[in-house]
Amino acid sequence: MTFDMIAFDADDTLWENEVYYTRAQTKLGVLLEKYIPVEDIHDSVYQTEMHNISLYGYGIKSFTLSMIETAIELTEGQISAADIQQIIGFGQEMLTADIQLLPGVKKTLQGLAETYSLMMITKGDLLDQQRKVDHTGIGGFFDYIEIVSEKNPADFQVLLSKYNMQPENFLMVGNSLRSDILPVIQLGGHAVHIPYADTWLHENVAPAVEYSDSYTVIENISVLPDYISSLER
Amino acid sequence: MTFDMIAFDADDTLWENEVYYTRAQTKLGVLLEKYIPVEDIHDSVYQTEMHNISLYGYGIKSFTLSMIETAIELTEGQISAADIQQIIGFGQEMLTADIQLLPGVKKTLQGLAETYSLMMITKGDLLDQQRKVDHTGIGGFFDYIEIVSEKNPADFQVLLSKYNMQPENFLMVGNSLRSDILPVIQLGGHAVHIPYADTWLHENVAPAVEYSDSYTVIENISVLPDYISSLER
Repeated sequence: MTFDMIAFDADDTLWENEVYYTRAQTKLGVLLEKYIPVEDIHDSVYQTEMHNISLYGYGIKSFTLSMIETAIELTEGQISAADIQQIIGFGQEMLTADIQLLPGVKKTLQGLAETYSLMMITKGDLLDQQRKVDHTGIGGFFDYIEIVSEKNPADFQVLLSKYNMQPENFLMVGNSLRSDILPVIQLGGHAVHIPYADTWLHENVAPAVEYSDSYTVIENISVLPDYISSLER
Repeated sequence: MTFDMIAFDADDTLWENEVYYTRAQTKLGVLLEKYIPVEDIHDSVYQTEMHNISLYGYGIKSFTLSMIETAIELTEGQISAADIQQIIGFGQEMLTADIQLLPGVKKTLQGLAETYSLMMITKGDLLDQQRKVDHTGIGGFFDYIEIVSEKNPADFQVLLSKYNMQPENFLMVGNSLRSDILPVIQLGGHAVHIPYADTWLHENVAPAVEYSDSYTVIENISVLPDYISSLER
């Protein structure tokens, strides 16, 4: 087997991401405590996010708008404008936060880039994802960077066609079963799942039984080159 | 002269855009009247947008966050949460508004697509711009659609390299001197300016004298094919 392209998800596959969302929600919970008893702020924000996702898409600006809406709802309109300004600040902190690569990422990409064409396929805000690429300094390892609004099978099919790739020569690596693994194997491609402790609820789905043997799970990105070599032997 | 690629801006070149932003700001002004005398809501929002642009980038979600921030500032924190929820609603209305193609767009694109490779190069939110492409039904005329976070000369250079295009065979068509015309002629490409009555302040710049003869102005998109033919004669 030879791969024409190895594609990587970015958020929580190459760099820390969900942790910033979790922290912001925790701060939101603390902010709201003076108004109401806050039981599960994460669940409340998640409900608002899911309600808005078809309109807003992914990323920090969508999340900030959903945090504001959640705060207004939970406090039944009692939250002050000053506290809403604080929530806007939580979002702005996320947009300027330092980006931390996950362990082994740089070395692994550097090694694979010598042999393979590499692609990044990530959801989120255009500007914010470009900022992360720039700040982590890993952009040079990638031949192509695709920032997409969704990662359904149809979206992957568009990319396969755009780059004239056959699914059997395409490998996708990521932490999300929903977005990185299942759509790719449904198209006949290859997928490597690197689970991440703090993966967003939305991205955690149980794979259907018929797909459970169709992808490989590895513990961290550092073992990816050995796995790929073993396939090509 | 032969063009390898004719590229089009989208907002206020192919479809109405700024009018939705203007309407939302007018509604914001009315909403704030019960708190304060509102003098120039458009200028106030613009100041906030410019302050946030390097963080937020372009698009409706950025604009909504900036409207909320402006409202909190102008009312010195007196605005109610219910009214902030209304501002969120102004943004959501924009995200679901009907998209109106400008006159002559469909016919012109259809004609040009028979002879040329066409590209759309647009700023804004990924999901929202894709929605507009889908709703207007003009996606099929374009060989490539690029949604970018900025349109500086460096951004156009990335696109020229990506598609292996020479600037002298590249024509850009758009309503913004800042984003569509000047960066392209600075790179040695060709540009056609189609002024639009309601172009956003940010996009209106005066061209430097040395560039004022380097691009063509046409009144509407319907005369573009004749202009292109005249160049190729």
